Amino acid sequence: MRQPIIGVMGPGEQAAPLAVQTAYELGQQIAESGWVLLTGGRNTGVMDAVNRGAKSAGGLTVGILPTSDRAQLSAAVDIPIVTGMGNARNAINVLSSDVVIACGMGVGTASEVAIAIKAEKPVVLLNWSQTGVQFFQEFASEGVSVADNVNDAIAIVHQLLQSV
Amino acid sequence: MRQPIIGVMGPGEQAAPLAVQTAYELGQQIAESGWVLLTGGRNTGVMDAVNRGAKSAGGLTVGILPTSDRAQLSAAVDIPIVTGMGNARNAINVLSSDVVIACGMGVGTASEVAIAIKAEKPVVLLNWSQTGVQFFQEFASEGVSVADNVNDAIAIVHQLLQSV
Amino acid sequence: MRQPIIGVMGPGEQAAPLAVQTAYELGQQIAESGWVLLTGGRNTGVMDAVNRGAKSAGGLTVGILPTSDRAQLSAAVDIPIVTGMGNARNAINVLSSDVVIACGMGVGTASEVAIAIKAEKPVVLLNWSQTGVQFFQEFASEGVSVADNVNDAIAIVHQLLQSV
Amino acid sequence: MRQPIIGVMGPGEQAAPLAVQTAYELGQQIAESGWVLLTGGRNTGVMDAVNRGAKSAGGLTVGILPTSDRAQLSAAVDIPIVTGMGNARNAINVLSSDVVIACGMGVGTASEVAIAIKAEKPVVLLNWSQTGVQFFQEFASEGVSVADNVNDAIAIVHQLLQSV
Repeated sequence: MRQPIIGVMGPGEQAAPLAVQTAYELGQQIAESGWVLLTGGRNTGVMDAVNRGAKSAGGLTVGILPTSDRAQLSAAVDIPIVTGMGNARNAINVLSSDVVIACGMGVGTASEVAIAIKAEKPVVLLNWSQTGVQFFQEFASEGVSVADNVNDAIAIVHQLLQSV
Repeated sequence: MRQPIIGVMGPGEQAAPLAVQTAYELGQQIAESGWVLLTGGRNTGVMDAVNRGAKSAGGLTVGILPTSDRAQLSAAVDIPIVTGMGNARNAINVLSSDVVIACGMGVGTASEVAIAIKAEKPVVLLNWSQTGVQFFQEFASEGVSVADNVNDAIAIVHQLLQSV
Repeated sequence: MRQPIIGVMGPGEQAAPLAVQTAYELGQQIAESGWVLLTGGRNTGVMDAVNRGAKSAGGLTVGILPTSDRAQLSAAVDIPIVTGMGNARNAINVLSSDVVIACGMGVGTASEVAIAIKAEKPVVLLNWSQTGVQFFQEFASEGVSVADNVNDAIAIVHQLLQSV
Repeated sequence: MRQPIIGVMGPGEQAAPLAVQTAYELGQQIAESGWVLLTGGRNTGVMDAVNRGAKSAGGLTVGILPTSDRAQLSAAVDIPIVTGMGNARNAINVLSSDVVIACGMGVGTASEVAIAIKAEKPVVLLNWSQTGVQFFQEFASEGVSVADNVNDAIAIVHQLLQSV
């Protein structure tokens, strides 16, 4: 049976220190759960941290780069996919994931949450403001879950994978 | 001098009647202002209505279709661009517009607003809830304008085009 | 009735002088035929020349740029579509055209001919080597026409449009 | 050090029996060489056979699907990337590969060879006609290698990887 693919989206250069620390722990637990990690692949912010966390726990990591080469690739990505498509690759991130976790808020991340809801992919919001949660839950009260911490997010993903 | 291209994004099948009526008037005024109208090109909701409004006033209309053929094309689109890329074409809508007007709320539209902010394109929110306005203005207080009605939106676009 | 859209593909920086001269005349005749011209939009080679020819005859021109801004846009393009997708935009060029004319040989152009055959779009090869013609006609003896000169290409397009 | 990614492109439904048999052996030797296999991911023709060969030898396989879901996924793909972009995903196949092997001729495959030459990726042609070889070598005499059989192709890739 194919391993589930969990997409973790989050801010790059603008990521807050808390989001980066959370992302590292999230990556560890994704790997320990036996899931493949998929991210935007760059060597910064949440993307880089969650990949490093997953590799620290022996996981397999896939990065969907917006650029046309690997210059900005996170060193913790095993499988770089080079799209050369800028933000249009955000749709690929979403479609390729069984569940999408948005770890920290940002506009790129918001575009991925929106596309996920449109594509009817389950989304977990982690470390989001009340405004952000309210905004997206108005569109999809069932498909959007809210996690208070990493353990909570992982528990929600386990549940979601049973019904995917 | 090239004509400005104004992108109007908005809900499709789920569009509220008010959003559709507003979109028609918006299309008329975009055409009367001498601007090219760009939309997602489908024959439904805000996309269809804004194109019909623009054609009623003799405007030129461009539609960026998500599909790989023209089966769902609005009859009021002059220039259909067929992408075959689904929601990944939302990034093209944004990058091709001098100004983006989000007419009514929806998740597809939210993804376009998010990408526009990331790409530093000016965005005008028309008929948006207070939650939606607040959510996006937290990311970009300067780049996101709020319009109360069509006249207001058109006036804002005139101002924005002077500084693009 | 919507105007037909004729896509003209051809080499950029590497275009031979003959291909550039041919492209200019081709653009003129496309405009005089009342068709919309669609190209890759850049300010070089066949793309630039065919757009200048079309504008000299009062035509309407659409350019599908590979870049994420308009820095390389041909001055003779009326409607720039900004994809930010590099060569992935070649598929859009093909899908958006009613007929594809390959004016001069190049690898980018070859990729567009190949995609056109796969998408079952009619293709006209103009100024191609015997090897190139033979290679593609092995895949699609019916869908690929060969034109000896601009007048010939235009006559073929007129015929193809009657059956599209 | 990251494992090299070898892209194998080839016909789908129209694949000749020889191309399918060759693809299976190619997949085995790619896996035995310790390389990651990347394909277009569908459950037919060369794509399916090369993935089955790689899995029979314990390899890791990545499939870049043109569709927006996994309905057509080869059962021998470990990591499906879902693009929803049709043939525009061919550019991703090329950009993500360290070396591209074209196993058998087809128009989709020809588009990938053309994009690879344009992107300056090394290409190996296996089981190609003399016309096809001649056509592409006119564009890039250095970047395009010709292999007579699977052993030959693998030897060429070993050499190419030393200079990538």
